[in-house]
Amino acid sequence: MTIRVENILSVISGAFGREDFLTLLESESVKVERIVSHASSSPENVWYDQSYSEWVFLVRGQATLQFESGQVIELEEGDYLTIPPHARHQVRQTGPETIWLVVHLKGEAGS
Amino acid sequence: MTIRVENILSVISGAFGREDFLTLLESESVKVERIVSHASSSPENVWYDQSYSEWVFLVRGQATLQFESGQVIELEEGDYLTIPPHARHQVRQTGPETIWLVVHLKGEAGS
Repeated sequence: MTIRVENILSVISGAFGREDFLTLLESESVKVERIVSHASSSPENVWYDQSYSEWVFLVRGQATLQFESGQVIELEEGDYLTIPPHARHQVRQTGPETIWLVVHLKGEAGS
Repeated sequence: MTIRVENILSVISGAFGREDFLTLLESESVKVERIVSHASSSPENVWYDQSYSEWVFLVRGQATLQFESGQVIELEEGDYLTIPPHARHQVRQTGPETIWLVVHLKGEAGS
């Protein structure tokens, strides 16, 4: 059995405003996903509202997250945070080629 | 509730040959861990042999992994791979300040 290596920085350039999703690993309880944001932002009235915790790590670029609570977070390369279940949030804006790594805890559904 | 942000690149320099472990997130089914290797290598006769899959991502630096199968993998920044359960392996050597991100699938025990 040969183990395959890939590189998270291998990004195909995308159209302005676009987001590309790639599942790197998935099991019953967890999904590891790469998201590449090309200067994207959430529509004004759309909130991400997931039923589980997600661990978010900014691999490259920069981004601004806005939470419904009012908290605004400016993220730089290397920053990470855990978004609890039902913490509604938007991506206000990202840099031109921003790479996220997200670990979704699918088995950890909130109430 | 205020969400806290930390940075994975915030590393305190360690002694030559040392490895530092920091748990970033842990649940019943998954552990996300940062490992900083300071030019470290496994002892000749010691193999890592975990009962679950682990997803390994080289955030900074470089490293060489040696599998018992004979496969040798040279890792550069951004490289990632999934190590299946019981794929015995060693870290042959790492750069002076090499940062790993490891996602342990604790709920995915192999036979």
